[in-house]
Amino acid sequence: MSGEFDLIDWIRNQQRNSPLIHIGVGDDLAALNWPAGDLLLVGVDQVIDGVHFDSAVHSPRQIGRKAMNRNLSDCAAMGCLPTAAVVAVALPKNRSLDEAKELYNGLREAGDAFDCPIIGGDTGTWDGKLVVSVTILGKSAGQKPVTRRGSRPGDGIYVTGPLGGSILGRHLTFEPRIKIGREIAPHASAMIDLSDGLSRDLPHICKASGVGAIIEASLVPIHSDAIELSRRDKISALDHALNDGEDYELLFTSNQDVAGGIRVGRITAEPGIFLEDERTNRISLIPRGWEHRIDA
Amino acid sequence: MSGEFDLIDWIRNQQRNSPLIHIGVGDDLAALNWPAGDLLLVGVDQVIDGVHFDSAVHSPRQIGRKAMNRNLSDCAAMGCLPTAAVVAVALPKNRSLDEAKELYNGLREAGDAFDCPIIGGDTGTWDGKLVVSVTILGKSAGQKPVTRRGSRPGDGIYVTGPLGGSILGRHLTFEPRIKIGREIAPHASAMIDLSDGLSRDLPHICKASGVGAIIEASLVPIHSDAIELSRRDKISALDHALNDGEDYELLFTSNQDVAGGIRVGRITAEPGIFLEDERTNRISLIPRGWEHRIDA
Repeated sequence: MSGEFDLIDWIRNQQRNSPLIHIGVGDDLAALNWPAGDLLLVGVDQVIDGVHFDSAVHSPRQIGRKAMNRNLSDCAAMGCLPTAAVVAVALPKNRSLDEAKELYNGLREAGDAFDCPIIGGDTGTWDGKLVVSVTILGKSAGQKPVTRRGSRPGDGIYVTGPLGGSILGRHLTFEPRIKIGREIAPHASAMIDLSDGLSRDLPHICKASGVGAIIEASLVPIHSDAIELSRRDKISALDHALNDGEDYELLFTSNQDVAGGIRVGRITAEPGIFLEDERTNRISLIPRGWEHRIDA
Repeated sequence: MSGEFDLIDWIRNQQRNSPLIHIGVGDDLAALNWPAGDLLLVGVDQVIDGVHFDSAVHSPRQIGRKAMNRNLSDCAAMGCLPTAAVVAVALPKNRSLDEAKELYNGLREAGDAFDCPIIGGDTGTWDGKLVVSVTILGKSAGQKPVTRRGSRPGDGIYVTGPLGGSILGRHLTFEPRIKIGREIAPHASAMIDLSDGLSRDLPHICKASGVGAIIEASLVPIHSDAIELSRRDKISALDHALNDGEDYELLFTSNQDVAGGIRVGRITAEPGIFLEDERTNRISLIPRGWEHRIDA
């Protein structure tokens, strides 16, 4: 009465029409009329119970929103427009159909905010905990995708908002920076979204571009959550801003100031990534952000 | 020394060049030059420890192959050509980097067999068991995708090979029917791959097409594995052929015989799905294949 196929029927009935969708939810594959001349961007990003959320605390709807928004954030980081998504859910056996629907509602409302319908999925129940994997399709829509590899010495380094302390709640409620990503893209030499933390994500740009970087400590915008967290754990708010993950702001480099970008440093020809204080003392900026480790 | 990022570096170095790939593994998203005029087909399908494989018994390479081949089988069922894939892996913490690489090797070699490179992924480690989610992109390549909804009364019902008993090993080692799927597609009114079993998958076609069906028991091709399994469990080999999941043969309907298709029955205007014996006695064909149930 309430098996996987009921859920698929229900999801099929939720789907909105779109001229893009040639075949929607409910066949072996969906099919899209891909706009001629548009690059197809694609990536997958999962959220895992106990790693990216805690199902004992967070609602299925919150979890769904986060799963979709992380992927939309990847679109923002490329300067592309989200187009459609497919979702795989490994669902604990003790979860109700209503909880599965709420998860889907969270995914869908996050996608709907950026015209990104869910056009396919796979749901399986098991003895394990919840894993939600979202694959996002984006289109270039007139904008060359911004990679991590275009930074040049002398470029400024910018972020789109204050950083740190997202664990207090923003990691679940952030708004993906699609709109500003599109505005920045024409002026950016490289871009990434801050999912692992500034000290971990900046090295991705430096490595891909073959450059170094200096972050000016006094310029780093510190979120009030980082200050609040600092009060509690006695780690400096700056450390939180540099190292906490899941800000989902954009980090980009440009040879000019761009509206919406807060300058935090500069790209250098010399390798290495440094933190510079107001007296121009430099220390190495050690990546302290979040890495899921594989025991080997 | 051996974190997630080492694995991503390693995967990036495995990627082959292709004129299709505009941006490959290692950025926020990959980008493809999508061929003008080709429909984009997309779907996601996951394999879960304890449901689709048993990590205590099956090797990471076998699991990787199965995860990719299930998705390639969905391409076969639409009559499209696989083009690229992205993969999300929720990896148990106690798995070694070598095991993760073997999983990837299995995924890759299955994809390579059909020119389907892996262009992106997400790996996270956790306290839970292994979940591998593959999203496949396919292109129509001159063939209108074959859906589930085109069957007409009078059409024959066909399968592409003998059925049943895949649990003895074929569920891990099957070859996706891409080539014959392309050959059948121009002549098929509806098509699906047999992942849940004939008695469960045929109703999808009938429901989508608004028709009924009669399966002739004497025509159903029975795999030697079904006979072997019948010896062990005393369930008839025919029951295994009708109900066992994971054959990954194609099930299609057509108004003509098609090379490679074994006729097993006919589509009817009257609703209902029946099994008919040689004396034309009919019983309802009860869906007994495999459903992942959600407790509600």
